[in-house]
Amino acid sequence: MLDILVTIDSNYLLPLRVMLKSLFLNNTGERFYIHLLYDDIESETLARLGDFVASEGHGLSAKRMDDMAFAEAPVRFHYTKAMYYRLLAFKFLPPDLDRILYLDPDILVINSLRSLYETNMDGKLYAAAYHSLVPARELNRIRLYPYEIESYYNSGVLLMNLQLQRLEIKETAIFDFVEENRAKLIMPDQDIINALYAKKIRTLDEKLYNYDVRYYRYYALTTSGACDMDFIFEHTGILHFCGKRKPWKKGYMGQFLALYKQYEKLAFRPRNG
Amino acid sequence: MLDILVTIDSNYLLPLRVMLKSLFLNNTGERFYIHLLYDDIESETLARLGDFVASEGHGLSAKRMDDMAFAEAPVRFHYTKAMYYRLLAFKFLPPDLDRILYLDPDILVINSLRSLYETNMDGKLYAAAYHSLVPARELNRIRLYPYEIESYYNSGVLLMNLQLQRLEIKETAIFDFVEENRAKLIMPDQDIINALYAKKIRTLDEKLYNYDVRYYRYYALTTSGACDMDFIFEHTGILHFCGKRKPWKKGYMGQFLALYKQYEKLAFRPRNG
Repeated sequence: MLDILVTIDSNYLLPLRVMLKSLFLNNTGERFYIHLLYDDIESETLARLGDFVASEGHGLSAKRMDDMAFAEAPVRFHYTKAMYYRLLAFKFLPPDLDRILYLDPDILVINSLRSLYETNMDGKLYAAAYHSLVPARELNRIRLYPYEIESYYNSGVLLMNLQLQRLEIKETAIFDFVEENRAKLIMPDQDIINALYAKKIRTLDEKLYNYDVRYYRYYALTTSGACDMDFIFEHTGILHFCGKRKPWKKGYMGQFLALYKQYEKLAFRPRNG
Repeated sequence: MLDILVTIDSNYLLPLRVMLKSLFLNNTGERFYIHLLYDDIESETLARLGDFVASEGHGLSAKRMDDMAFAEAPVRFHYTKAMYYRLLAFKFLPPDLDRILYLDPDILVINSLRSLYETNMDGKLYAAAYHSLVPARELNRIRLYPYEIESYYNSGVLLMNLQLQRLEIKETAIFDFVEENRAKLIMPDQDIINALYAKKIRTLDEKLYNYDVRYYRYYALTTSGACDMDFIFEHTGILHFCGKRKPWKKGYMGQFLALYKQYEKLAFRPRNG
C-alpha cells in the first residue's frame, strides 16, 4: 500500500483526477491510499471523486480542514490557509503513518513510483527535487537571503518522513517565519520548506521525479540528447506542468499537451464494458 | 463485434501492437475481432500477439498468405505481394463478413470508432478520407493521369464493403492495371484504389478518421483554431503518422510523440495486478 497526500481546493479537481488516473494506470499492481486534505469542496463532488478512486481499485479518505485548525496562522490575501496543509499534514494524518508521498495536482505520473516511495530518508524530513536551470535558482537565493538556499527545492513532489516531522517540525516556527517574511514570500509553502528545512531535504533527481515540462529542450541539451522522449518514458516517474500555463486551460502549447489530453479523456470517460 | 483488418510483415509488429492497444483502450465496451493477413512472421511472435489481444479481451485470427495466393500477380522489388493483401482481402476473409475496417499499423486510435464502423456505405466499395493539403493532391492527380483523380484518398484507414467487393472487384483488373502502370506507381495499393475505384469511395472527414499528424498547424489554421488539441481529443478517432518519419524510430519530433510513447509503454508493459 502506497500512501499519497493531496491537498486541493475545488479549482484543482479536474487536474487532480487526471493526475490520479495517470498514477493508477502506470502503477498497475500497486494499491494506493489517497489522503485528501481539503477545504470548500461540495460533498457531492467529493463523493464522485471517491467513486472514481474506488472504481480504479484504490482507497480515498478526505479530511476537511476546518477554520480552527490554523487559527493562529498568519494569512494574507494571496496565500491562504491551504498553504499550511502540506507543511503541517503530519498533524492531520493517521498517527501510525510513517511516510507519505505528497503530489501536486498539476503532474502526470508516467512510470512506477515504487522506488521513489522507498527512498531511504536517512534522517531527512523530506525528499524533493530542485530544478537546476540556473537563473531561477539564483533568483530564489537572493530573494530568500539571509536564509541559505543552495538549491531551491520544488515542493510539488515531496516524500515526507512523517515520523521525524512529528518530532522536529514546530507549527510556531513556521508561523513565526511567515510573520517575519511576509513581504518576501512568493510561493509560501515552497519558500518555507526551503528557508527552514533545506538541510533536511534529501535530493531527488528532477529528471526522474520532478521533470519540468517547460524545459524539454534544456534537459535534452544538457545531457547531449540522452534525456530524450525515450528516456522519459522509460525512466521518468513524474512530469510536472510547472508555471502559470496549464494544459487543462485553453491556449496551452507544448510537447506534452496531447499526452495530457489523453489522460484527461481517460480520467473522465464513462465506465462501461 | 467490430471486425478489424490488419496486414503486416514483421517490421511492423511493434507499431501494430501499439495501435491495437490504443484501439482497445479508447473503445471500452466494444469487442473487436482482429483479422491479420501476414507473411513471414515467426509462429512464436504470432502467439505473443495473440496472447496480447486475448489478454485485452478481444479475438485474433491470423492467416498466412502463401505464395500461391497471388501467383499471377505482377511484383517488383519495392512493392511486394503484401500490397495485394489489402486490395484482395475479401477473398481471404470469412465469407459471411459483410464489412471490415482496415487499419494501418502507424496510427493511434484515440476515440470510439463505432460510428465510423457503422458508416452507411450506400453502394460504395470503400469509405476513406483524403488529405486536403493542396500540393500533395495536385501531384497525385498529375502522376496518375489519365485516371481521373479528384481527390487522392489515403488507404491507411479503409472501411470495406466486402459484400459489394466480392461482386465488383476483379483480381485480373488489378493485375492488369499494375502491369500497365508499373512506372507510375509509388504507393501501389493506394494508387490502385484511387485509379480504379475513386468513384466508388465514400469520403470520410480526415479530421475525424485520418488525421495526418504532420499537419497539426495546418488543421488548426484552416479551421480558425477550431481543430485544436481539445477538438482532437473530443472528436478525432484516428491519428495517422503518415510519411517517412515514424514515432517509434529515433529522432522523430512532433506534437504527438509523447502520446505515442505512452501507448508504446502501455502496449508492452508486463501484465500484473
